[in-house]
Amino acid sequence: MLPTIAREDDAVVMIDQRKLPAREVYVRCKTAPEVARAIKTMVIRGAPAIGVAAAMGVALGMRKSQARGTQKFAAEFYKVCELMASTRPTAVNLFWAIERMKRSFGGAAEAGESVDQIKDRLDREAQAIHDEDLASCRAMGAFGAEVVPDNARILTHCNAGALATAGYGTALGVIRGAVEAGKRVTVVAGETRPFLQGARLTAWELVRDGIETTVITDSMAGAIMRQGTIDLVVVGADRIAANGDTANKIGTYTVAVLAREHNIPFYVAAPLSTIDLHTPDGQHIPIEERNAREVTHLAGSQLTPVGVGIRNPAFDVTPHHFIAGIITERGILRAPYTESLKRAFETEAVTTRT
Amino acid sequence: MLPTIAREDDAVVMIDQRKLPAREVYVRCKTAPEVARAIKTMVIRGAPAIGVAAAMGVALGMRKSQARGTQKFAAEFYKVCELMASTRPTAVNLFWAIERMKRSFGGAAEAGESVDQIKDRLDREAQAIHDEDLASCRAMGAFGAEVVPDNARILTHCNAGALATAGYGTALGVIRGAVEAGKRVTVVAGETRPFLQGARLTAWELVRDGIETTVITDSMAGAIMRQGTIDLVVVGADRIAANGDTANKIGTYTVAVLAREHNIPFYVAAPLSTIDLHTPDGQHIPIEERNAREVTHLAGSQLTPVGVGIRNPAFDVTPHHFIAGIITERGILRAPYTESLKRAFETEAVTTRT
Repeated sequence: MLPTIAREDDAVVMIDQRKLPAREVYVRCKTAPEVARAIKTMVIRGAPAIGVAAAMGVALGMRKSQARGTQKFAAEFYKVCELMASTRPTAVNLFWAIERMKRSFGGAAEAGESVDQIKDRLDREAQAIHDEDLASCRAMGAFGAEVVPDNARILTHCNAGALATAGYGTALGVIRGAVEAGKRVTVVAGETRPFLQGARLTAWELVRDGIETTVITDSMAGAIMRQGTIDLVVVGADRIAANGDTANKIGTYTVAVLAREHNIPFYVAAPLSTIDLHTPDGQHIPIEERNAREVTHLAGSQLTPVGVGIRNPAFDVTPHHFIAGIITERGILRAPYTESLKRAFETEAVTTRT
Repeated sequence: MLPTIAREDDAVVMIDQRKLPAREVYVRCKTAPEVARAIKTMVIRGAPAIGVAAAMGVALGMRKSQARGTQKFAAEFYKVCELMASTRPTAVNLFWAIERMKRSFGGAAEAGESVDQIKDRLDREAQAIHDEDLASCRAMGAFGAEVVPDNARILTHCNAGALATAGYGTALGVIRGAVEAGKRVTVVAGETRPFLQGARLTAWELVRDGIETTVITDSMAGAIMRQGTIDLVVVGADRIAANGDTANKIGTYTVAVLAREHNIPFYVAAPLSTIDLHTPDGQHIPIEERNAREVTHLAGSQLTPVGVGIRNPAFDVTPHHFIAGIITERGILRAPYTESLKRAFETEAVTTRT
């Protein structure tokens, strides 16, 4: 299992995803602001993983608090939560995890727990978020394996793998689930400019797992699909609106349009923590615009001339009608998503079999 | 005017397109094999430009020939032609230019010209190919301007500019023609991985011309189109088959699918020398697969892990039914292309006005 993120007594430890695959460097964040900065600068990325990181960051920050009284402690707690919430705007798992920490804190306060008791409770809650995410990924893998035919050639975009989660992955969890179910699969990974999560992270994870993987530039997806060599697309998600519209890494929408043009089923794999019933549709999902330098520079080298404009939206939205199914830890949700997504939160087992 | 390629007495001089925009370095090729190597390694690229380069390379090689007798001279000539033809397989302008040089040579031989006379004739023919290409680009610009609305936001892929031709450009020629016709245009340039012709070359050319240009990663094209901010797509071509199927830089097909999804007209701009009536359709166009290193490395830095597969087709084929029109030096050709392409070679003025 890949060590994406782990808690130590006095730190949150993460593998530095900016340096993979060239170097495996671990970053030890000893304060909440250091965790926030790691999220912002993409030391760690991937919606479920940054949810875990934010929760662990809050718990770490409060563990180190010098506050004696619960009032001062509470003030610090909400400030740390605010700091974490300001790191990145699109992935809803971040806000979901912070909300869970707040509910946990509220429960402790109501029960009249001491500062030390609350610290323990926050640590446990953050660890629970981590452990549940891992379990969700494994469940997604088991459910998702159903839609993967034997000898499937699967295209994925960005990294929705162990590195994007507490472990195992969402989209890559489905691929791993299919392999564990005895199916043969090969993977085509879009390199995912500008940050190259596909070329660097997905390729690295899958090669480690011995799953045959080919990297293509994002621009090749159309040509490869037209050759008839892709059977299935599976991607992750950063936020799924109530109607099924899905924000994911920039380029996902392009892949979805291409998949439909070539009659290739396009699946999204994400835990319920990525589904945001308070966002009615994709138009209401805030899309982060990141620094132009991510596009203009690579490996310290400037690619573009001075004087040119740059766009760098980190995500795009795929409308729900492009999506064949949303693979969750409670089964595969199908259209109409407005109903199936809501129902998924109400029951323990909403599985749709193909 | 950009100095893409020029002939000197003892050399063919090219700007090194691999080093732009960071550095403006000129390469002086003093022999035919040096020209061939420059084409192969993409010192110069772009279908019309490599046609000019091949013709100048042949003329240069023969200028430097020590052969006295016409028979030895002829043997050398055909060997040099073969060398040039072996550089790159997809762009038909290369073979078209070599054929023109062969016809010129044949005419000289028939006329009983001396070796020195043939050398002069080959020099003139290569220069004519250069000059005609420049004139063709200007004509494409004038015709193409008609389909560009005022305030058009134009997306282009790769570099079909002055650097890809003898000057002025095909797709960028259309943009320049629209500007010269008094239209306001802004351009979105796909960066065009792996070689980054869009981010490096198109951006550089247009910034020099003072045309407002924004670079996006190729993966952003879908999201940008969905926002309704693109009115028109114009790209170049490396080979157009008899039925209008068009090979162009990898990623062009993806852009064409996206353009149709968003009801954006998709135009190809190319001179008749890019149209190959001997190739019936796109399936018969040979697609060059280039070295994996172009995908795996950037600025000397390795992006991908060891053990992963790589695909690097340099071109893809856009089926003719995605194409709103083919802008040539003889006017804008429209579907059915099987007829309009053939007719373009038969008459002097096949213009279709919108």
